[in-house]
Amino acid sequence: MDLSHSPRATDLRDRVRSFIETHIEPVEHDHHREIARLRNGGGDPWQPLPLMGELQTKARAEGLWNLFLPAGHEMHYAEKYGTDGGVGLSNIDYAPVAEAMGRSFLAPQVFNCNAPDTGNMEVLLRYGTDSQREEWLDPLLDGRIRSAFCMTEPDVASSDATTMELTAVADGEDIILNGRKWWSTGVGSPECEILIVMGLTAPDADRHHRHSMVLVPRNTPGVEVARMLPTMGFFDEPGGHGEVTFTDVRVPRENFISGPGQAFEIAQGRLGPGRVHHAMRVVGLAEKALELACRRGSERLAFGKPIVNLGGNRERIAQARIAINSTRLLILDAAYKLDTGGPFNALSEVAQIKVAAPRMAQEVIDFAMQMHGGAGLSDDFPLAAAWTNARALRLADGPDEVHLGMVARIELGSYGMKR
Amino acid sequence: MDLSHSPRATDLRDRVRSFIETHIEPVEHDHHREIARLRNGGGDPWQPLPLMGELQTKARAEGLWNLFLPAGHEMHYAEKYGTDGGVGLSNIDYAPVAEAMGRSFLAPQVFNCNAPDTGNMEVLLRYGTDSQREEWLDPLLDGRIRSAFCMTEPDVASSDATTMELTAVADGEDIILNGRKWWSTGVGSPECEILIVMGLTAPDADRHHRHSMVLVPRNTPGVEVARMLPTMGFFDEPGGHGEVTFTDVRVPRENFISGPGQAFEIAQGRLGPGRVHHAMRVVGLAEKALELACRRGSERLAFGKPIVNLGGNRERIAQARIAINSTRLLILDAAYKLDTGGPFNALSEVAQIKVAAPRMAQEVIDFAMQMHGGAGLSDDFPLAAAWTNARALRLADGPDEVHLGMVARIELGSYGMKR
Amino acid sequence: MDLSHSPRATDLRDRVRSFIETHIEPVEHDHHREIARLRNGGGDPWQPLPLMGELQTKARAEGLWNLFLPAGHEMHYAEKYGTDGGVGLSNIDYAPVAEAMGRSFLAPQVFNCNAPDTGNMEVLLRYGTDSQREEWLDPLLDGRIRSAFCMTEPDVASSDATTMELTAVADGEDIILNGRKWWSTGVGSPECEILIVMGLTAPDADRHHRHSMVLVPRNTPGVEVARMLPTMGFFDEPGGHGEVTFTDVRVPRENFISGPGQAFEIAQGRLGPGRVHHAMRVVGLAEKALELACRRGSERLAFGKPIVNLGGNRERIAQARIAINSTRLLILDAAYKLDTGGPFNALSEVAQIKVAAPRMAQEVIDFAMQMHGGAGLSDDFPLAAAWTNARALRLADGPDEVHLGMVARIELGSYGMKR
Amino acid sequence: MDLSHSPRATDLRDRVRSFIETHIEPVEHDHHREIARLRNGGGDPWQPLPLMGELQTKARAEGLWNLFLPAGHEMHYAEKYGTDGGVGLSNIDYAPVAEAMGRSFLAPQVFNCNAPDTGNMEVLLRYGTDSQREEWLDPLLDGRIRSAFCMTEPDVASSDATTMELTAVADGEDIILNGRKWWSTGVGSPECEILIVMGLTAPDADRHHRHSMVLVPRNTPGVEVARMLPTMGFFDEPGGHGEVTFTDVRVPRENFISGPGQAFEIAQGRLGPGRVHHAMRVVGLAEKALELACRRGSERLAFGKPIVNLGGNRERIAQARIAINSTRLLILDAAYKLDTGGPFNALSEVAQIKVAAPRMAQEVIDFAMQMHGGAGLSDDFPLAAAWTNARALRLADGPDEVHLGMVARIELGSYGMKR
Repeated sequence: MDLSHSPRATDLRDRVRSFIETHIEPVEHDHHREIARLRNGGGDPWQPLPLMGELQTKARAEGLWNLFLPAGHEMHYAEKYGTDGGVGLSNIDYAPVAEAMGRSFLAPQVFNCNAPDTGNMEVLLRYGTDSQREEWLDPLLDGRIRSAFCMTEPDVASSDATTMELTAVADGEDIILNGRKWWSTGVGSPECEILIVMGLTAPDADRHHRHSMVLVPRNTPGVEVARMLPTMGFFDEPGGHGEVTFTDVRVPRENFISGPGQAFEIAQGRLGPGRVHHAMRVVGLAEKALELACRRGSERLAFGKPIVNLGGNRERIAQARIAINSTRLLILDAAYKLDTGGPFNALSEVAQIKVAAPRMAQEVIDFAMQMHGGAGLSDDFPLAAAWTNARALRLADGPDEVHLGMVARIELGSYGMKR
Repeated sequence: MDLSHSPRATDLRDRVRSFIETHIEPVEHDHHREIARLRNGGGDPWQPLPLMGELQTKARAEGLWNLFLPAGHEMHYAEKYGTDGGVGLSNIDYAPVAEAMGRSFLAPQVFNCNAPDTGNMEVLLRYGTDSQREEWLDPLLDGRIRSAFCMTEPDVASSDATTMELTAVADGEDIILNGRKWWSTGVGSPECEILIVMGLTAPDADRHHRHSMVLVPRNTPGVEVARMLPTMGFFDEPGGHGEVTFTDVRVPRENFISGPGQAFEIAQGRLGPGRVHHAMRVVGLAEKALELACRRGSERLAFGKPIVNLGGNRERIAQARIAINSTRLLILDAAYKLDTGGPFNALSEVAQIKVAAPRMAQEVIDFAMQMHGGAGLSDDFPLAAAWTNARALRLADGPDEVHLGMVARIELGSYGMKR
Repeated sequence: MDLSHSPRATDLRDRVRSFIETHIEPVEHDHHREIARLRNGGGDPWQPLPLMGELQTKARAEGLWNLFLPAGHEMHYAEKYGTDGGVGLSNIDYAPVAEAMGRSFLAPQVFNCNAPDTGNMEVLLRYGTDSQREEWLDPLLDGRIRSAFCMTEPDVASSDATTMELTAVADGEDIILNGRKWWSTGVGSPECEILIVMGLTAPDADRHHRHSMVLVPRNTPGVEVARMLPTMGFFDEPGGHGEVTFTDVRVPRENFISGPGQAFEIAQGRLGPGRVHHAMRVVGLAEKALELACRRGSERLAFGKPIVNLGGNRERIAQARIAINSTRLLILDAAYKLDTGGPFNALSEVAQIKVAAPRMAQEVIDFAMQMHGGAGLSDDFPLAAAWTNARALRLADGPDEVHLGMVARIELGSYGMKR
Repeated sequence: MDLSHSPRATDLRDRVRSFIETHIEPVEHDHHREIARLRNGGGDPWQPLPLMGELQTKARAEGLWNLFLPAGHEMHYAEKYGTDGGVGLSNIDYAPVAEAMGRSFLAPQVFNCNAPDTGNMEVLLRYGTDSQREEWLDPLLDGRIRSAFCMTEPDVASSDATTMELTAVADGEDIILNGRKWWSTGVGSPECEILIVMGLTAPDADRHHRHSMVLVPRNTPGVEVARMLPTMGFFDEPGGHGEVTFTDVRVPRENFISGPGQAFEIAQGRLGPGRVHHAMRVVGLAEKALELACRRGSERLAFGKPIVNLGGNRERIAQARIAINSTRLLILDAAYKLDTGGPFNALSEVAQIKVAAPRMAQEVIDFAMQMHGGAGLSDDFPLAAAWTNARALRLADGPDEVHLGMVARIELGSYGMKR
């Protein structure tokens, strides 16, 4: 169980951190303020700001681009689209890079490593046909377009993915989609040109072969963004999270990914590494929050003492350190198991980090907010947004409770228990 | 320790609940959506919507107006401004009324019982001169104007109120104010006409006689709202929370409330009953959240079962019921002690509820959000806003940690320990 | 909801506290040490020590005897056996008396108010025939004998009482019992002369009419104490907790209490007030623990400061105060509902306190142990025994989880959910 | 950060586990029962039972002896006393072996790897003179004698080790000791022949050079075991935990270890690896408890279902799995840092595991007890003893709070904060 990163990963992490400190952090707060200004009557916050493109150009020039691309897959993509040295990273090597990116909300997109694009690109890489890849994977890797993943539905408990109701029916040479999705992240941006939509194709098939993944160009007639959804008051412009309606949407039959009825297999393959990414990013967020708490608490005085020296604050700092360290190790261990045994030998480990990382981060960030007083709840610090991010991850990709159920099922399996 | 409400209080609570169900709940969601529409480019969300005035007129007609006015004080106000029967309520009797109001974000203002106006009106009632009352208390009780309370400052740890730096210096017949406040709730509305500002008057006096409370009309030259502050992404228009600068602001010397150096005494008197109000309102919020969780969890299915029957959900519902009930009783007990012994005999009890109620509500609401999946984080349900409200209360009126310190100090006092 | 105690209850509580301070506390530690000495090779710890009888005589002379006897039942017992003034107490009035007794492990028995005798006496009072009462209730009220309650079994999950397997079969004029019980508290003492045994009589009846309660004299042939059970290393001599085997035990048919098949009805009636007693006693324990923590923490220095001033200790003291106060109020509220509405209108409230009180006490006592360092785990302080007591209550009368289920079921009942 | 064990460590762990399953588990329960029988009047529980010697002989024959001996130190000891292959283990390699031993209370002594002997042997190995080693280290490694470590005192807060009051004064060629220690583990056994005693030698030296470590043979005149102390009711015979008085105890001056005033340096060196051992053993305990919980919960039915399927039990199993895994990784990481950087580069990591491991274990074991109902609190399962072990570790080697303070101090050090 070698949880250490390769020298290459250490180098990439350091370069990513340095890039963030040099190029992103100095402008990030202004960027958020500018979006706030636009939102509050000053213009259209759903248009990407030029800053993002400029930062992406710089990052790409430094070789910090598409680093999420996994080792061992179709390396000409890595070569063609500038991934460092043309070779993808293992999960254990990408982990510290993802943590570094997690310290900034802008960073993942600057490096073309943001959800849901990374997951969508992986799906196309693993399951796409050549023509699907040419049409959509190339421009995504190139950063020319963005994408959305349309899975969750408002009218069913999406924690049970077999209940999805949007229909994706084969009709001659076409697929016709009808239904409603929400929490489609990224769909708010005009750069979002392609949607991967999960739909019900074969209601009478067994539970895990009823649904399909379908490529739906954003501008297909019948695709409407009904509204953008706030998360705890945050709209996360310009990508945002949309509610999308599909009314008699017609796409060619070759837009099935990996054929009809394959949605579950694809989702399973998509989510494992994605959860490592998410988990490491929130570890980065938690580290950032703890750092802010230590700084604020050391500098600010109350009752004649630095705030860190009041009440139980030092104990909470120590607890945060313990929680961050042990959670990071848990994620690295899951990454190691994914790398060495593949997703089906890491089901429990991946479920464990899905639960552990956001909860840990939420608590650490809550403490950091408390150390900042009212400022912690405002947008003067990235803490309120960070908390919201961690909180949303307790529901994204299925609520924690579903993943705890998976961990328990595997644990009890060794004692002969069935569900 | 009779924690029961008088029949009159029960009647008022029932009428308030019925009013909310009949007149507010049917329109509340549209009201929030309309503000969201204005905010998102459709207009000015900082203008009060006509609906509020209409609801206030109805509430006042039903005698549900200024119910917060305390028993035993200047009853002609209660008579003049329509308080039920012309007689104020004890804390124990107002408590269930406050809980009922807490179930809706609009309700407190509809009944002219919203913070910070209630606290400000109490200050004027208890400490104001006749002319101060005439000028500001009358229109506040009449709902013609609104007010703000300017205490917290961005540059000092406001948990230690003795550190406040804004100066309020007597200069001949005038007071000159210079400095910066933030989290001044309500200051965003054009109806806000008067500010109560805490400022440093006598730096060399003992710690508790350095600061004064000063009445500052909103339109005094030198008073600027630098910006409105979001809380977890929520701006709470049209009242909001502002950062306010005071630059050579000059008001007449008679605008001191209760004379110079009296800020601490006033703050103490202001905060006791205010904390009971806040605490009971979040109990109402928590009840509302639990109700939503039970409904959602009973109606929605996953894996073939109602969600409440999955995993630990029933246990969490039970824990929420226990937490709500015991916290409500703790608040009623504090109200009883305030009523029977006055604020200085209820210091520990009031500090206890300041800590206990928001934490309890935050946990219950977090659970309710989780039961709602993504919807719980959106604005389709009032849960995200409710959580934010409870979270902010862990900092408002001083962070929890300060209040825990007070409880411990009193506890240890009986063993001869000093701070 | 008048949660105040009557002046009579206040007087009794004060007299009980004063008796404990004057007569019990000065000798209690020596009493425990003497039992320890006997246990560790010095003699037989299962013989009652003379001290208990002496203290009982004193307590009875002061009218502090059988105070648990409920209001409104067969008051000649109260008169005959010395209960204060000949009149039983309501639950709300007995609550503070029980809390006072909870501060000492010896006290309940000194006042003839200890479990399981109180519950057994209540059963006889409510459901016994005249001759059953004469034979067993009179000597129990008189303190001449003690009793045990044999319900839990080692081989089934006793949380589901319908699974009990010991048979109590009617055979002509006799009842024959066969089976095994454990955690039969009190059975270790030679003074224990009567057992109330729950057994399966009618396997084919509906779930709640299969079992009976049977009076079994301790010396009936076939009744054997197989062993005494330790709880976390404590044997709680001389009463203790026994595993008892019943082999062809034959008692006359009139030993059914309230007839065959009535066990559930009796258990339900027995447990409501008993849970209030238990809960208030652990509140008393928690208060005692907090008191010890405050004293120790104020007196002992480390790193140049009283321990209470280190780290988060003051916050923990404050949290303990909040937890104790709110739990006590919750219990008083349940007592009030029992008094005014009867057990079937207080099912949720009684289940709530069953869960809340031991957990609260366990946490407070754990903190108090931590404040005492190694001494807290030893028998120099009553903390280890107190913790064990609170921990055991999370299982006694059914594990917490069953009671949480009851609270949830009632909560969800209002939304039309069924189990 | 290679947290994997060497093949040799894996082999040793497997052999240790196999030895425990084959030779210890079948007799362990009877062994505890026999001690209980002796304690309860049947004889002297403070005499080692023959079983221990028999098991030790077997273990030694299999090369499972003194495995704790660290790599790189005086390897002739390892060779001479049978340590596997004559080569000590790194911390990361000993960790899984310690975890395996932690599953049984007898195991550590069977393999001559039990506290406090291991720590004492390390002290002699690192700091002892040749003659000290010959006299005491050889027989300890040989299992002929046992030892105790006398540090904690009843009259001072031993969390602050600088306050220790027992005097160890140089007097000509002698050292004279006067004072009182407690929680001297192992001192109850007649095999305990040597004590390492920390005493005050130079009150005027700087805080960290006042105390010395002194070798005191158990049979030196003036050394008395005043009493044996129970932990939560457990005496842990035959070693136990004693209160020891030293009255004019005189030993030769060469009995200072590493000279006078060196106690702190020695304690520091002694405790780092010891904490890894302790932490890994409680991980083993927690695994054992979770295993018992899964078995019991799968086999036993209530309300017609296996207990694991009721309420939140599956969630708790999953949470236990997450907690165990992440804590184990945290400990391995600390072991790795100890191995690669030495104790002074792992101060925070060692303090973190000192806090994290016992708390985790205590919670997991508490859950396992709850799953067992009353049986969980009895001695039918090792859970009550396991819980007590974990609870005691929150105080042993200093209370958690002191270690949290260390973690916070190091964390804040990077921001320029001082204590």
